[in-house]
Amino acid sequence: MTQLTGLETPLLLLDEQRMQHNIDRMQRRMNGLGVSFRPHVKTSKCPEVVRRQLAAGAHGITVSTLKEADEFLAAGINDILYAVAIAPAKFDHAMRLSRAGVQLTLLVESVAAAQQLSRHGMENGLCHEVFIEVDTDHHRSGIAPDDPLLAQVAGALRTDGGRGARLKGVMTHAGGSYSLNTPEALAAMAEQERARCVEAANRLRAAGHACEVVSVGSTPTALSAKTLAGVTEVRAGVYVFFDLVMAGVGVCTQDDIALTVLCSVIGHQPQAGWIITDAGWMAMSRDRGTQSQAHDWGYGMVCDASGRAIAQLQFGEANQEHGVLQWTGDPATDITRRFPVGALLRIMPNHACATSAQHQAYHVLPQAGGELERWERFGGW
Amino acid sequence: MTQLTGLETPLLLLDEQRMQHNIDRMQRRMNGLGVSFRPHVKTSKCPEVVRRQLAAGAHGITVSTLKEADEFLAAGINDILYAVAIAPAKFDHAMRLSRAGVQLTLLVESVAAAQQLSRHGMENGLCHEVFIEVDTDHHRSGIAPDDPLLAQVAGALRTDGGRGARLKGVMTHAGGSYSLNTPEALAAMAEQERARCVEAANRLRAAGHACEVVSVGSTPTALSAKTLAGVTEVRAGVYVFFDLVMAGVGVCTQDDIALTVLCSVIGHQPQAGWIITDAGWMAMSRDRGTQSQAHDWGYGMVCDASGRAIAQLQFGEANQEHGVLQWTGDPATDITRRFPVGALLRIMPNHACATSAQHQAYHVLPQAGGELERWERFGGW
Repeated sequence: MTQLTGLETPLLLLDEQRMQHNIDRMQRRMNGLGVSFRPHVKTSKCPEVVRRQLAAGAHGITVSTLKEADEFLAAGINDILYAVAIAPAKFDHAMRLSRAGVQLTLLVESVAAAQQLSRHGMENGLCHEVFIEVDTDHHRSGIAPDDPLLAQVAGALRTDGGRGARLKGVMTHAGGSYSLNTPEALAAMAEQERARCVEAANRLRAAGHACEVVSVGSTPTALSAKTLAGVTEVRAGVYVFFDLVMAGVGVCTQDDIALTVLCSVIGHQPQAGWIITDAGWMAMSRDRGTQSQAHDWGYGMVCDASGRAIAQLQFGEANQEHGVLQWTGDPATDITRRFPVGALLRIMPNHACATSAQHQAYHVLPQAGGELERWERFGGW
Repeated sequence: MTQLTGLETPLLLLDEQRMQHNIDRMQRRMNGLGVSFRPHVKTSKCPEVVRRQLAAGAHGITVSTLKEADEFLAAGINDILYAVAIAPAKFDHAMRLSRAGVQLTLLVESVAAAQQLSRHGMENGLCHEVFIEVDTDHHRSGIAPDDPLLAQVAGALRTDGGRGARLKGVMTHAGGSYSLNTPEALAAMAEQERARCVEAANRLRAAGHACEVVSVGSTPTALSAKTLAGVTEVRAGVYVFFDLVMAGVGVCTQDDIALTVLCSVIGHQPQAGWIITDAGWMAMSRDRGTQSQAHDWGYGMVCDASGRAIAQLQFGEANQEHGVLQWTGDPATDITRRFPVGALLRIMPNHACATSAQHQAYHVLPQAGGELERWERFGGW
């Protein structure tokens, strides 16, 4: 066990062994299904993590902001999908990335964006590579496979002399899978995501459009698909760390969760059975993603310094820099002695993407043991 | 109106005029009540903002992390209260700040912390200045005024030859005020906060302890107190920007709220009446602080680019980089034309501290008009 005593808390701990296990599990699955894998790096925003995903066999990355593209280009990665429909004010930024050597794919889901992006490419002498976003589960954005708009958007992507915007493929994200929790429902959602996205590609092909790439994915569907016929690539993000929400969905166990927030006990309210820590919502995020699941973990699952759950402590309240843990064990327990000021606890997060985003670095428990390493992460846009 | 078109979104807009109005209002009130004012800078984490609070008449600052103390020392501010009970692993950091010239006040609420801090001061040849945290509303941490523990903690603060830890005062934070919403209840909570904290100071004095400072505060109570007899200083943080939660509490109007998140429309689901923007929970935070208030604003109140509310748009769902706005107006409205791809919207936040923390800078609409300025903010611990 690496020494944690003496560290200034709160801080974000990353268990490298668990992370590597998660990376290997997903990559093996994708290899078995015969698809390319393009991890979504919005979860980690950390080159050290992403290098391990690529080393395991991933091809390219998915980003949620152009800032991520900037940062990962600087880290030497140049095959990048920006998987949020692009707003016109970002066209110039995308162009700078392309000119800096990024093989960048953009996303549109409207005729307006397709027209404007085509004009931007023509006017600036480059060809934007584009996916059309397909809606396969009615949970957010994209175009339904049977909507005539799909072909209209494809038709609005124009090139002239190799300049403009070119249709490269279709992509979908079955985010609705996050609300499921049985293997059967997850497999059905994965099949729905696959079938509808392939249908969209086939309709475009039938209308005369090349559509090389069929990109699907979310962590739950990627881990539940039985077959991915017609799909060329899969994306997933949170699997790299996993979290309590994913454990509630049923695609990992608590023992797979690689992230915890290390905190210190700073006080008590013995009459109320409260233990006060220095991990509030600033350290955990305000994400209460397990609230709608079978087990609501409050602001996270409380563990001791070695990572073992302490079932009698519930993390129900958080202020900015204060966590309030409720003791639910034997009322005769002297909580000021059992959890004295300065004692270390670890909190497993509801949502790894949200909790990570509150921190500027991962403090890594190395696979090989020994001292903690510090891996920087970035934020912003 | 400063030009917003062409900006890459999402970004955090700060209306300087509103902020200055909020600063002046609070400082006038504190001057009128005859108390010193020590703003809590955890809200802004921005030297440009804090300089304006000090210029208006504030004395010193309150911080929620030692990182804030580091950063504000670097900005030339050296009268600092760290208003979270200190954990032993942070003693050395506090000592470095003191040695670097900070007049630093620390907080304890246990005999254990008082003893350890005294020993640390003695062993290292410095005298830590200390407040004891008093609990006046049973909402979080601190010691009740009539708890014998109060005098025990004071007695555990020891100096030897001017080294150790010295009791400087008492402080309380009536965070329970956030759940109130009538002037009468707020005034009563402010009086309770005042009376109980003064009682704690008087009990300590009666037990032979000097207790120079009596520090109280929260934005709602600071703006609701009728008298502050016996109080020497008040603290408040979120008043500097205000937010929808504070408007719901009733201590500001929506027109006082100085922060909005500027975002772009990136897509639509016309059948569902959804407008998709690029401000998701990463830009807004996951804070849903108005959920328990009379009006639940979802992830924030939607305004047009000039800041006028659009009552027919509700911000009910957010993914990491997607906001989903529900159109509740005339179903015959073509939302793809009324809010086309690229249109700018501004979202007023539930909780200014949480939303600000998601951003690395404020984009300031200057009082004098003209181009946006950029004020950096920091995060982390």
